Amino acid sequence: MSKTISINAGSSSLKWQLYLMPQEQVLAKGLIERIGLKDSISTVKFDGRSEQQILDITDHTQAVRILLDDLKRFDIIQSYDEITGVGHRVVAGGEHFKDSALVTEEVIQQVEELSLLAPLHNPANAAGIRAFREILPDITSVLVFDTSFHTSMPEKAYRYPLPSKYYTENKVRKYGAHGTSHEYVAQEAAKVLGKPIEELKLITCHIGNGASITAVDKGLSVDTSMGFTPLGGVMMGTRTGDIDPAIIPYLMLHTDDFSSPEDISHVLNRESGLKGVSGNSSDMRDIESAMEAGDHDATLAFDIFVDRIQKYIGQYFAVLNGADAIIFTAGIGENSDLVREAVISGLSWFGCDIEPAKNVRGAEGVISTPEAKVKVLVIPTDEELVIAREVERFKNQ
Amino acid sequence: MSKTISINAGSSSLKWQLYLMPQEQVLAKGLIERIGLKDSISTVKFDGRSEQQILDITDHTQAVRILLDDLKRFDIIQSYDEITGVGHRVVAGGEHFKDSALVTEEVIQQVEELSLLAPLHNPANAAGIRAFREILPDITSVLVFDTSFHTSMPEKAYRYPLPSKYYTENKVRKYGAHGTSHEYVAQEAAKVLGKPIEELKLITCHIGNGASITAVDKGLSVDTSMGFTPLGGVMMGTRTGDIDPAIIPYLMLHTDDFSSPEDISHVLNRESGLKGVSGNSSDMRDIESAMEAGDHDATLAFDIFVDRIQKYIGQYFAVLNGADAIIFTAGIGENSDLVREAVISGLSWFGCDIEPAKNVRGAEGVISTPEAKVKVLVIPTDEELVIAREVERFKNQ
Repeated sequence: MSKTISINAGSSSLKWQLYLMPQEQVLAKGLIERIGLKDSISTVKFDGRSEQQILDITDHTQAVRILLDDLKRFDIIQSYDEITGVGHRVVAGGEHFKDSALVTEEVIQQVEELSLLAPLHNPANAAGIRAFREILPDITSVLVFDTSFHTSMPEKAYRYPLPSKYYTENKVRKYGAHGTSHEYVAQEAAKVLGKPIEELKLITCHIGNGASITAVDKGLSVDTSMGFTPLGGVMMGTRTGDIDPAIIPYLMLHTDDFSSPEDISHVLNRESGLKGVSGNSSDMRDIESAMEAGDHDATLAFDIFVDRIQKYIGQYFAVLNGADAIIFTAGIGENSDLVREAVISGLSWFGCDIEPAKNVRGAEGVISTPEAKVKVLVIPTDEELVIAREVERFKNQ
Repeated sequence: MSKTISINAGSSSLKWQLYLMPQEQVLAKGLIERIGLKDSISTVKFDGRSEQQILDITDHTQAVRILLDDLKRFDIIQSYDEITGVGHRVVAGGEHFKDSALVTEEVIQQVEELSLLAPLHNPANAAGIRAFREILPDITSVLVFDTSFHTSMPEKAYRYPLPSKYYTENKVRKYGAHGTSHEYVAQEAAKVLGKPIEELKLITCHIGNGASITAVDKGLSVDTSMGFTPLGGVMMGTRTGDIDPAIIPYLMLHTDDFSSPEDISHVLNRESGLKGVSGNSSDMRDIESAMEAGDHDATLAFDIFVDRIQKYIGQYFAVLNGADAIIFTAGIGENSDLVREAVISGLSWFGCDIEPAKNVRGAEGVISTPEAKVKVLVIPTDEELVIAREVERFKNQ
């Protein structure tokens, strides 16, 4: 029996989860926040307990040391030797990483080179990888890419109608995101539906603060809503999703907010979406509360949000030429029965029909009526578990 | 009996068609090109003849004088008095023009103010309007807006997930285009299908060098693919359609081609689409020839083009919650059986099924099988006739 740790490193954070494998039992999990800032916070949860300490953590290497010390301090492990594997989430794998990969110096350099495609995420991911490699150099160390699942997309889906040189020279194409989540919930849905995934056409809706929708044919991603970056696709908490690109040069000419590439990215990524339209909050719970109070802008934000999800589901019915099931997951997908109800109630022609008694907060599994031609499911996502399983797969190779 | 002239003025061109109304009989039509340049060309077609002259035409007023002179010179009219109405196409009507409008000085000024939304088109439209007003001040003069048909869209369809101020202060919203064409083919399709338009859900595909797709519910536009400008929506001859907006700041940082708003607009509007991907031509006929010769990039351009149309059709099945028919019109929609076949063959799950014998070049009317749940039609568009009819409507008010 061995212990494997799943790592999701952000620019100033490190999220982790420790598993007993192959039992897939969660032994502990935690989050280190404000790395590189004053008063960093490390939280550890295990055995129903939650322990927190505030201290100054200067970098990811120190964060990894503190997390490992905590595991010993709380008797979750007796010695580092018990940890035999680590899996790291990496946001951008480009075209190269079609599968997870064992860590080597060359692979880390490739992740760093791909920072051009994910300037906020890949350097942080690489820092987390290097930290573990320094402290636990001999364990099985695997990188799991958000983009690998989408490398099966056909050329017509991943290429943009731009001059070809921006693809060949600048690598501008659709890469997608949330790949581990889409793959996991598609696999789980097949189990719930009792059919081999090779016989299913699925539309997976990962709807959280970031959101993407994927068309999954026979277990493979054939199209996904996120594009070159996580800004594309459906409307999100603070992101626009797809818009007429001519809006950008127009606002460059007619406002002061779009004067640099950084400004443009800021408005479209941080000030838009639910937040921009509601003028209030990027959090769907706040939007729903404001709606109940009769707020027009919150209602409009909700309606646009639902409209864009419905449109992507419609698109992927076309891409797949039909679908067997629609799967909701992630923060909003798992928890907002209101969003699920609004999305699905507009798709009755497609053969979708939600059973209101099943569509409750915290629902899991099938929430459509037995007669519905297209099933609707809620499957809680578990990207950490997918990462731990990938480590296991590499150990057994 | 009276004669009405339909006018479509571009920045350096003036397209016209003379009708005997209310018989809707075309008496003559013509095109004046290279206005303001050396060697302008005026072409007049009537009675099976085509007459052309090359001369220097300095502005739209002179172009109108020459067109009227030609009508007398070729005995198409005996006197200007026979012309009792003129209808002008206007590209951008903003939120204000929900219907066609009689020309007044105030209305012309409003069209000029809306030039911000269509900097290439509205000033030319206004020039054509002023020219007729100067020469034939007493006839019924009507403006027909490309955008009026789309003013029935609900807020959730026309608003973008951007901060609200860009809507309230900068008027950034979806306006759509090709409104007269979408409305005309929807009405004609209802006649062909033998049902009142109030009972139909239609998806109209105006696919020319510019292309837009509209969801028409009970005769009203409820959503359309073109956006704030004619750059949004599906891939076109030289335009991208929708893309992940983050591509723009990325290419601003990493190439020299995106250094000003004008450069950005140029690449996305003029160098992209079929032309950008094929590296060759923006003309679907060239693309189809190159495909037959086995050209990879032309085939890819065709495949992306079809993919984006299918995705919008799928979207609008969702928006309408089902559809009775899909209608193809405009240059490619009317003439490319290959595009129609490729689009529809991927939508069999929806109940679409083309009858190959009917899907020929120059097809008109229903081209789907009798059993098909969703009908597919080809309806040649006739924007000039819609404009002439609008003039007639105002005369009879």
